[in-house]
Amino acid sequence: MSSSPEQNPSRPSVTVLGLGPMGRALAGAFLDAGVRTTVWNRTPGREGDLVERGAVPAASAEEAVAASPLTVICLVNYDATDSVLRRPEVTAALKGRTVANLSADTPERARDTGRWAEEHGIGYLDGAIMTPTPSIGTPEGVFLHSGPEPLYAEHRPVLGALGGSHSHLGEDVGRAAAYDLALLDIFWTAMSGYVHALALARAEGVTARELAPFAQGIGAILPPLFREWAEDVDTRTYSGEGNPVTSGLSTMEHVVHAAEGHGLDASVMRATAALARRAVDRGHGADGFTRVTELLDLR
Amino acid sequence: MSSSPEQNPSRPSVTVLGLGPMGRALAGAFLDAGVRTTVWNRTPGREGDLVERGAVPAASAEEAVAASPLTVICLVNYDATDSVLRRPEVTAALKGRTVANLSADTPERARDTGRWAEEHGIGYLDGAIMTPTPSIGTPEGVFLHSGPEPLYAEHRPVLGALGGSHSHLGEDVGRAAAYDLALLDIFWTAMSGYVHALALARAEGVTARELAPFAQGIGAILPPLFREWAEDVDTRTYSGEGNPVTSGLSTMEHVVHAAEGHGLDASVMRATAALARRAVDRGHGADGFTRVTELLDLR
Ligand SMILES: NC(=O)c1ccc[n+]([C@@H]2O[C@H](COP(=O)([O-])OP(=O)(O)OC[C@H]3O[C@@H](n4cnc5c(N)ncnc54)[C@H](OP(=O)(O)O)[C@@H]3O)[C@@H](O)[C@H]2O)c1
Ligand SMILES: NC(=O)c1ccc[n+]([C@@H]2O[C@H](COP(=O)([O-])OP(=O)(O)OC[C@H]3O[C@@H](n4cnc5c(N)ncnc54)[C@H](OP(=O)(O)O)[C@@H]3O)[C@@H](O)[C@H]2O)c1
Repeated sequence: MSSSPEQNPSRPSVTVLGLGPMGRALAGAFLDAGVRTTVWNRTPGREGDLVERGAVPAASAEEAVAASPLTVICLVNYDATDSVLRRPEVTAALKGRTVANLSADTPERARDTGRWAEEHGIGYLDGAIMTPTPSIGTPEGVFLHSGPEPLYAEHRPVLGALGGSHSHLGEDVGRAAAYDLALLDIFWTAMSGYVHALALARAEGVTARELAPFAQGIGAILPPLFREWAEDVDTRTYSGEGNPVTSGLSTMEHVVHAAEGHGLDASVMRATAALARRAVDRGHGADGFTRVTELLDLR
Repeated sequence: MSSSPEQNPSRPSVTVLGLGPMGRALAGAFLDAGVRTTVWNRTPGREGDLVERGAVPAASAEEAVAASPLTVICLVNYDATDSVLRRPEVTAALKGRTVANLSADTPERARDTGRWAEEHGIGYLDGAIMTPTPSIGTPEGVFLHSGPEPLYAEHRPVLGALGGSHSHLGEDVGRAAAYDLALLDIFWTAMSGYVHALALARAEGVTARELAPFAQGIGAILPPLFREWAEDVDTRTYSGEGNPVTSGLSTMEHVVHAAEGHGLDASVMRATAALARRAVDRGHGADGFTRVTELLDLR
C-alpha cells in the first residue's frame, strides 16, 4: 500500500487480525468509533462490508501489524494465534508494539504467549470477550483484560472504542483466561442443560416456545443464587438449609429416568448426579450442592 | 381431637402432608394467609413453630386429610407420596376430596397417581414448585399445575394463598411434571456448571466472590438466549450464525483441558463436549449448539 495508516498520528488506529464473526464485530465497532482500522484474515475475502465502511485491508499479517501501535487478535484459539504471531516476519514487525489477544484459550496458553512476547520485546495484554457478537459496540459488551497495568492504561482508550464494560483483573496475564474459562464453563454447561430440557420437553409434547418463558424464570433465579453460593464456597460452609444435596440428587435421578424413558441421552445429567451422589456417599447429604466444589479434586 | 377443623365452613381450610423445608414453607404461607391449616408428617416433631402460629397437628395422615376439602402433599418423591396416600385408611378418607400433589417426580408417576385417584373417587391435581422455600408466600413463588380445569378453578383460591404466580398448563395430569423436569434439568445442569467453575477458579487463585459478579453477568445473558434458542428449535433452523458449534466445542475442550490440568473432574463438561462433537461429526459444525436437540435421541 502506498499510504501508511500511521500518517495521521492524531487519529487513533488499531489492527484487527481475524475476521470470523467476532473479529468482524470488533473491527466494525472500531470503525463506528472513528478508529482507523487495518484488517487481515488468514482466508482472504472475509472482510464483508468492512472495507466499504473504511477498513484498510492488509495483504499480509506483517503488513497489518506494522500499521498500528495496537493489534487486536481474535482467532479460534492459541494454536491459531501462534501460527499467525510466531511467524518471524510478524514477530519482527510487532517489536515495540502491543498485542491484545482476545481469543479464547487456557490460562497456561495465555501465560506462554506472554513469555514469548516478552522475549521478543512485544507488549502483551491478554483478554476475553464474555458476550456474543451483537453486544460488541453496545453497552452490553463485557471484556476482561489482564497483563501489565501500565500497558493496559495506555491502550484502554482505544479498547474503550469497543463499548461495553472493561475490567482489568490483574497483572498475571493468565487471569482473564482463568475467568473466561470459568464463565464459559457456566455458560456451556447451562446451555447443555437447556438444549437437553428442550429435547425432553419435545418428547413430552411441550414445545420450546411453551417452555421458554418458564426457562427464562429459572434463568432469572440463577444470579442471586450464584452470589449466595459463592459466599458458601469461600467460607466453606456448604449450607444445605432448605435445599440439601439428597433432595437435589433425587430430582436429578428423575430427570435421568424420564429422559432415558424417552430414549434420550442423559449423559450430562448422569455426570451431574454422580457428583451429587459422591457428596451423599461421603456423608455430606445434608449439605448444599456447593459441597461438590471440594469433591472434584481427583488427586 | 375434639373440635373438627371443618366446623367453620366460611373459613378456607387446607391440609398439608409433609413438613420438610418445603412443606413447612407451604403450611406457613397458608397460615399467614388466614387459611385453617392441618399438618402431618411421617416423622413426628417436624412442626417447628407452625403449631404456635395456629396449625392443627393431626395424629395420622387419615385424620389430616379428613380435616379439609383440599390436601396439599409435598414429599421427597412419589414413592413417598404413594406410601402415604395409598394406605387404605388414607385412600378411604380422601374419597370425594381433592389432592394437590406438589412433590417432584416424573410425568409418568404423576399420570399413574392420577389414575389411582380416579379409581378411588379422589379429585387429583398435580403440580410443581419452581422456586426455593424463601419464595413461598411472596410474589416470587412460581407454581405449575395440571389436571382437570374445573378442579383447578375450584381450588385456585386456596392455592392462591401461597402467593406468587400459578399457571395451569393443561388437563394432562403429567404436564406440570414434564415442565418441572425440563426446568430442573436446566437448573441442576447450570448449577453443576457453576460449582465446577468455582472449583476451577479456586485452582487458578480466583475466589468465588471474585468470580460471582461475572457469573451473575453470564446468568443475565441466559434468559434472552433461551428465548432465541427456543425459536431455533421449534422451527428446526438451528442457526449457528455468530456462534457455530465448532467454536463452542473448541471452548468446551479448553475447559476440560484446564480443569483436568488442575486434577479436577471434568465429567460434566466432557459429556457436554461429546454432544457438540456429535453435531460436528455428523456434519452440523456450522449450525448452532441447538442442533444437539436432534441428536439426543438414541433410538
Ligand atoms: N462469536 C462469539 O459470539 C464469541 C463470543 C465471545 C468470544 N468469542 C471468541 O472469539 C474468538 C473468535 O471467535 P469467532 O466467533 O470469530 O469464530 P471462530 O470460529 O472461533 O474463529 C474464526 C477465526 O479464527 C481463524 N482461524 C482459525 N484457525 C486458524 C489458523 N490455524 N490460523 C489462522 N487463523 C485461524 C479464522 O480464519 P479463517 O477465516 O481463515 O478460517 C477466523 O478468523 C474465539 O476464541 C471465540 O471463542 C466469540
Ligand atoms: N426445598 C426447596 O427449595 C424446593 C423447591 C422446589 C421444589 N421442592 C420439592 O418439594 C418437595 C419436598 O422438598 P423438601 O425441601 O421439603 O425436602 P425433601 O427432603 O425433598 O422432602 C422431605 C419430606 O419428604 C418426607 N418423606 C421422605 N420419604 C418419605 C416416605 N418414604 N414416606 C413419607 N414421607 C417421606 C419427609 O418426611 P420425614 O420428615 O418423615 O423424613 C419430609 O416430609 C420435593 O419434591 C422437592 O423437590 C423443594
